[in-house]
Amino acid sequence: MSQRTKIKALLAGGQTGTEVTVKGWVRTFRNNQFIALNDGSTNNNLQIVVDFQNTDEALLKRITTGAAIAVTGQLIESLGKGQTVEVKATSIEILGDSDPEKYPLQPKKHSLEFLREIAHLRFRTNTFGAVFRVRNSLAFAVHKFFQEQGFVYLHTPIITASDAEGAGEMFHVTNFDIGNPPRTESGEVDFKQDFFGRAANLTVSGQLEGELGAMALSDIYTFGPTFRAENSNTTRHLAEFWMIEPEMAFYDLNDNMDMAEALLKYVISYALEHNKEDIEFLTQRLLEEEKQKPQQERSELNLLDKLQFCLDNDFMRITYTEAIDILRDSSHNKKKKFQYLIEGWGADLQSEHERYLVEKHFKKPVILTDYPKEIKAFYMRQNDDGKTVRAMDILFPGIGEIVGGSQREERLDRLEQRMNEMHIPTEELWWYLDTRRFGACPHAGFGLGFERLVLFVTGMGNIRDVIPFPRFPKNAEF
Amino acid sequence: MSQRTKIKALLAGGQTGTEVTVKGWVRTFRNNQFIALNDGSTNNNLQIVVDFQNTDEALLKRITTGAAIAVTGQLIESLGKGQTVEVKATSIEILGDSDPEKYPLQPKKHSLEFLREIAHLRFRTNTFGAVFRVRNSLAFAVHKFFQEQGFVYLHTPIITASDAEGAGEMFHVTNFDIGNPPRTESGEVDFKQDFFGRAANLTVSGQLEGELGAMALSDIYTFGPTFRAENSNTTRHLAEFWMIEPEMAFYDLNDNMDMAEALLKYVISYALEHNKEDIEFLTQRLLEEEKQKPQQERSELNLLDKLQFCLDNDFMRITYTEAIDILRDSSHNKKKKFQYLIEGWGADLQSEHERYLVEKHFKKPVILTDYPKEIKAFYMRQNDDGKTVRAMDILFPGIGEIVGGSQREERLDRLEQRMNEMHIPTEELWWYLDTRRFGACPHAGFGLGFERLVLFVTGMGNIRDVIPFPRFPKNAEF
Repeated sequence: MSQRTKIKALLAGGQTGTEVTVKGWVRTFRNNQFIALNDGSTNNNLQIVVDFQNTDEALLKRITTGAAIAVTGQLIESLGKGQTVEVKATSIEILGDSDPEKYPLQPKKHSLEFLREIAHLRFRTNTFGAVFRVRNSLAFAVHKFFQEQGFVYLHTPIITASDAEGAGEMFHVTNFDIGNPPRTESGEVDFKQDFFGRAANLTVSGQLEGELGAMALSDIYTFGPTFRAENSNTTRHLAEFWMIEPEMAFYDLNDNMDMAEALLKYVISYALEHNKEDIEFLTQRLLEEEKQKPQQERSELNLLDKLQFCLDNDFMRITYTEAIDILRDSSHNKKKKFQYLIEGWGADLQSEHERYLVEKHFKKPVILTDYPKEIKAFYMRQNDDGKTVRAMDILFPGIGEIVGGSQREERLDRLEQRMNEMHIPTEELWWYLDTRRFGACPHAGFGLGFERLVLFVTGMGNIRDVIPFPRFPKNAEF
Repeated sequence: MSQRTKIKALLAGGQTGTEVTVKGWVRTFRNNQFIALNDGSTNNNLQIVVDFQNTDEALLKRITTGAAIAVTGQLIESLGKGQTVEVKATSIEILGDSDPEKYPLQPKKHSLEFLREIAHLRFRTNTFGAVFRVRNSLAFAVHKFFQEQGFVYLHTPIITASDAEGAGEMFHVTNFDIGNPPRTESGEVDFKQDFFGRAANLTVSGQLEGELGAMALSDIYTFGPTFRAENSNTTRHLAEFWMIEPEMAFYDLNDNMDMAEALLKYVISYALEHNKEDIEFLTQRLLEEEKQKPQQERSELNLLDKLQFCLDNDFMRITYTEAIDILRDSSHNKKKKFQYLIEGWGADLQSEHERYLVEKHFKKPVILTDYPKEIKAFYMRQNDDGKTVRAMDILFPGIGEIVGGSQREERLDRLEQRMNEMHIPTEELWWYLDTRRFGACPHAGFGLGFERLVLFVTGMGNIRDVIPFPRFPKNAEF
């Protein structure tokens, strides 16, 4: 039954003169004669030429936008522009009708907001077909990159009883009837009776467990879903998103930065190679979209050029302290164009500051290192200055932070001291501390937000448009 | 800093006579002279020869099981058996000590049950190093297989508001204080105020959303975590596990079986090629373990032979009805050796029946098709007999069901009728039914339980030992 040829293969080099069978969905049907057929294997449609004079009228009427059809015919050279080959149909079978009065996707431009409402059908548009094929390539490229370097893909747990990292931002997981949980004699919810025998949450990061793997297997990476119960209705946040978290034994911060930069370049390069047509389409889409904007808000580089630019240039590496100096002395700061003015060392950087550094000052990706310990997590290695930690964030144009990482604190006494200062319960993380008790070593790692990467490579503007079914406040449809 | 060579590379063909730096963890230290060093890149240790007469006594004392060390020295041909090369150390640095009085992993055989209690350290054993390297290879092979065939990797949602498939077995996800959720005037929990504006759960399958992708992209697959809040304390069930769910447009049940069989053979073959030493180690481990058992309970084939056998033979394909006949007429049934006797058509098959078919009757993997509709899900395509559906389960020796799939019911009227019969709310699944309203086509798919695959390929006996940090009733440690 599956003896069909995919459209991508035909367009890339089908032999004219042979009989082929293609199956897919009708995008348009012009003049009772030309079907634009798409099967999702490529952004391009295959033109089907219908011999309408010898085709049953009733059948012709059923060839409507969205209908699933099977076509057998001869592959011939195309005389029309924009395609090399087309199929001269000898038989057409309607597999599934699509009532044009009811089908929500018409052959016209729909807004991204509208398409988000019908996310179950938006895969059928050029834009989302391209986005999800690019997303697929990026995901595979991540695996390929790490496999080629001998990393072990580790599935860290999704449900966790530990909330050391995500206090207040974690979703609770329970088997209880939420309206009526069992209670102890003193009236507290009796989590001992819950499925896991204790309160449980959805993970915000696999890093701590990833470190356990790295302390035996040397190099590991995770690639799985993570969660934030944050009430953020922005174009850059999701309640459920995918993260890649490599962790490397015997690495310092420089090794860590080298690895992250190599990863980003590898996966972007892979997508450019394997999704040329998709990215060209998305580049055009973005140019069209930017035509609506005033000149000074348009991008200096188009999408394709921006991706190539990232590959061709070393990322700029500076310390947080240097960045603060640049920001404080900037005319932008002096003219009070920042919403949050930079007054001095210690401030947490906002998205506007990150983007200023990347888009205005350096005009390329930037890696900031050695942040103040007060604004970073407990597990980052403490510098000798007593003020900063061996953190590194990678900032990308249009995106802001795409990677966050650090060399980890491998010294037990320093780690425990910092945990105590930050009120992180050391007993609960006994297993994490064990790796510092037995065979500790310098090590480092980072987290790459996968959807932010897809945003960057597709040029889309809203993170809800680069994951199939986005989860955000008040939305879990589909 | 990372200028070290991994042990796998050295053992596979390091050039003798050169100076090398290796880093890893001490497995054993014999006679103050021979360190067995492991860095997780391979199951094999590298022997380090220590010039103990010219090494500081205090340093020698710190070379203990579990300690992390860096060694520089000359790679030389080894005279000892079991290795081709070894390193004659010129410098040894202790990166992290491991107090032999406190380190839980001693250089002796520990029980799998004990190691499960210290899952954060079990990566450091030969058995679990091998298991997780094999798991890694199987995961990558899954991606490679589908990518080579033009499938799109789709991340279907983890948090879902739909409970159509998993009624009663789903974990609830909430942002509420579980002891004190907001309530409506009538006293019900007011889920409108919850994070997603409605009650939400953890997914039991990405299939329904996967179908949405396939109805535009043709061929998709998922590979993500799924959840069951089932109180099953068995060696084959987990509360959190990973599933692979491909979904193919224009496929019928035969195409589906071909695809599943090809996938299984591909990934097993990949692991045999890339993890030869790990699988050889696991084969020996299993032989040792089986020595404890009476002769008749031991496997006829060892692990390596069993895997090869799967590659070399076509899976046996029979209908459920044929299987029932075989089981009912078997001497096993007649002698009442089954716990659940097979009396006639319609019975759900238990693990004992599946294993009888695979291990005793056919002695190879079996694909059962066309099950009674009463024991299968609502979305499976109905056969014309009015009694059976186009389901297929693949049964593996020692494992039982490893794949469950079907051709899907693409006919709207049949699907709605079955949903009504089974009390599945059609309004809630409006988006699923839309794919039958607009451009429906024959399609099929299946689910492969990833941990069951890892169980099979590693020969381990308990599913809790093939996932890094297992989740099961009363356990969410680490």
